[in-house]
Amino acid sequence: MTKKQMKLGAFILLPGQHVASWRYPSTQPHRTFDLDYLTEIAKTAECGKFDTIFFADVFGQNLAENTPSALKLDPVILISALAAVTKNIGLTATLTTTYNEPFQVARKYSAIDHLSKGRAAWNVVTSANDSESLLFGKEKHLQHADRYERAEEFVDVVKKLWFSIEDEALIIDKENGEFLDLNKVHPVDHEGKWFKVQGTLDSPSTPQGHPVIVQAGSSEAGKELAAKTAEVIFTAWQTLEEAQAFYRDVKGRLAKYGRKPEDLKIMPGVFITVAKTEEEAIAKRKELNSYILPEIGLEYLSGFTGVDLTGYDVDGPIPDFAEIEDPTNPGIRRNLIRGLVERENLKTLREVYERISGARGHREIVGTPSQIADQLEEWFLNEGADGFNIQPPTFPDGLNDIVDLVIPELQRRGLFRTEYESDTLRGNLGLSVPVNPNKKQPQTVGE
Amino acid sequence: MTKKQMKLGAFILLPGQHVASWRYPSTQPHRTFDLDYLTEIAKTAECGKFDTIFFADVFGQNLAENTPSALKLDPVILISALAAVTKNIGLTATLTTTYNEPFQVARKYSAIDHLSKGRAAWNVVTSANDSESLLFGKEKHLQHADRYERAEEFVDVVKKLWFSIEDEALIIDKENGEFLDLNKVHPVDHEGKWFKVQGTLDSPSTPQGHPVIVQAGSSEAGKELAAKTAEVIFTAWQTLEEAQAFYRDVKGRLAKYGRKPEDLKIMPGVFITVAKTEEEAIAKRKELNSYILPEIGLEYLSGFTGVDLTGYDVDGPIPDFAEIEDPTNPGIRRNLIRGLVERENLKTLREVYERISGARGHREIVGTPSQIADQLEEWFLNEGADGFNIQPPTFPDGLNDIVDLVIPELQRRGLFRTEYESDTLRGNLGLSVPVNPNKKQPQTVGE
Repeated sequence: MTKKQMKLGAFILLPGQHVASWRYPSTQPHRTFDLDYLTEIAKTAECGKFDTIFFADVFGQNLAENTPSALKLDPVILISALAAVTKNIGLTATLTTTYNEPFQVARKYSAIDHLSKGRAAWNVVTSANDSESLLFGKEKHLQHADRYERAEEFVDVVKKLWFSIEDEALIIDKENGEFLDLNKVHPVDHEGKWFKVQGTLDSPSTPQGHPVIVQAGSSEAGKELAAKTAEVIFTAWQTLEEAQAFYRDVKGRLAKYGRKPEDLKIMPGVFITVAKTEEEAIAKRKELNSYILPEIGLEYLSGFTGVDLTGYDVDGPIPDFAEIEDPTNPGIRRNLIRGLVERENLKTLREVYERISGARGHREIVGTPSQIADQLEEWFLNEGADGFNIQPPTFPDGLNDIVDLVIPELQRRGLFRTEYESDTLRGNLGLSVPVNPNKKQPQTVGE
Repeated sequence: MTKKQMKLGAFILLPGQHVASWRYPSTQPHRTFDLDYLTEIAKTAECGKFDTIFFADVFGQNLAENTPSALKLDPVILISALAAVTKNIGLTATLTTTYNEPFQVARKYSAIDHLSKGRAAWNVVTSANDSESLLFGKEKHLQHADRYERAEEFVDVVKKLWFSIEDEALIIDKENGEFLDLNKVHPVDHEGKWFKVQGTLDSPSTPQGHPVIVQAGSSEAGKELAAKTAEVIFTAWQTLEEAQAFYRDVKGRLAKYGRKPEDLKIMPGVFITVAKTEEEAIAKRKELNSYILPEIGLEYLSGFTGVDLTGYDVDGPIPDFAEIEDPTNPGIRRNLIRGLVERENLKTLREVYERISGARGHREIVGTPSQIADQLEEWFLNEGADGFNIQPPTFPDGLNDIVDLVIPELQRRGLFRTEYESDTLRGNLGLSVPVNPNKKQPQTVGE
């Protein structure tokens, strides 16, 4: 029997995951909007046999903070284009439920799943920034509970639409002039608190049954929504203990929704700086930090924690981040900073922003291929994770290094595939094809 | 000096433009959702040097009418994928202003324009069907005047967003750590009747300045909106006189918006059945009609005219279509039918539905390459059109025939390009690059 293997996503934040990575000599920030460059990146990840490439999405970011990653292409459009130039790798794009309509979303991911022949995934998020809401004529974003309630109903309606025309509805009998079997068409008639939707999607169910559903929440509401509907969770934990607690918590919530532990893959983010020797890896990581201008570092830390640090001495002591509370994001990020400061004995604001400027809240590993594989293996074998969303520090070099150095080491240990097992993302992730609840089950012979 | 040449769009309605084309032996209706097939079609059109492929979009159509063209992929997603596998041809997709938000739309077409290196076009429409509105929780679609008012403000906001970051805003000075020139970032602060939008897009202006804007309206409000903002009009006329009247009318409205006649290309739809001999072309056209089941023909005609014809004798007399009036679509389609019946002396409902089952309201030409070129030339040289959106009866054969037979005849006459003149759709259409109104003009030397 084959050994259980980890699932891997390649998290693509351009020009690079590290806050100052765009200043790294080999990065190509001017090519963020260039399909040739984006294709190279996707193909590199596909060479590395990653389950999926993963594009996050936050918009309305403050350009005055001079954050290159605030400039980007719509990720749904981007994965649509990449569907045409890749063959096996999954295509995951984030799209918010807060400023969209279920029909539009159902239709877009259905199209991507058809065009990619079964490789689409939707990362379901809610929008939590006022700067996002201002782009849609709202002074304030929805409160946390409302956002999640809307998101839950949104996913529910999208799934109904995805199931509204069975894949076998198309008869296409040219001889007799019958195109569609209307018994296999099931108009949605939904009326809920947030949405009222009547009609069908205009395409049949997709090669994956429906696109894979990804979520990222780690709040109580986020975990419950994930347990109900998610097939992959993208999450952020610093220690194995935290990761294990989350893993047990979420997997334990599945049974009440009639789901099994293997129906949901938990894949925390990991920021990886790798080199052939430990010294070289550490030097590379330090070099990246050398590109952070102190005012940019403070701005980044202010944005990350929600605490305005303008005017603070970067080499001075660390203030108490607990002072300011944000009800919509209850302290998760500030708790993370406090944990790092205590465990790693950080002394100055510069040390703090240097520490988080790469992983941006996710786990960070620096070292040789073997050191990195050891750490991934530890979490994987001890119910901390079913796999990882790997965040390369730079593009294209950071991703190239992971594909050239880390992937072969994981493959050597039998922890990762050497060839894609399936033509679909769902198949590679080991997720079952969802059953269309509208489908009449075939009668058992003899009954 | 080069002779003035016509512009051509390839209008792609799958499985085929003719209502019963899916029953034609060589059509491939089962491949409507297959990117390999869609790529073949796009590349064929590109071989033919078409300015653009053009995907319309109506959703919420009644599947019970068994209309294969009611099943489709989201056209915005489709052209995004096709951007990756084509090089020169324009990519036009329809998207409604009625059930979307300006920021989402601005962002999607911006991404397509970047990824295609300047080949995106947005066909701006308003949604007029109740079945569409039901998918968005509305009992009734917006009234005509409201739809156009909303559309006008929508386009206005989308353009502001497209201009919100100048193309030269990205400095990317790695040495000094300066990424963006904030003097070239211009946040939108829009508050109108329909939309309130504050913020910038998250990508700089696109290779075309902005994507090409296409419109299709021929109502009074539609013509006025087109005169103000459209760069291409897709329209439908049966006779040269009608086409000329529309051409003069719309071109005459441009001056008051500070625009020149050449800033707007008028491209009516033309349904073309071509063969090497006239007999063969007529036989091919007749064969297509032979595939229309009478009940489907009546259903189609009912939908087209808004008059319920269920139970009518297909070989009986033609009722008076003027009896039922639809205020949102004031008789244009019924007038069209009346015109055809009178001019062509049609006697039965079967003759009527057979007559419109191909062009669906657009002009129809059947004949040899030379006969077809004669007719296109007549409209083109006599201010009836700047070009045409050509509607092949079937795919892939109908399009192949046009590329193999009609295009070479137009080229031989010097009426159509033999090579693309430009890398962008805008360049091929002969449209100028829009000036970003936020851009500081360079000072003239000596002032």
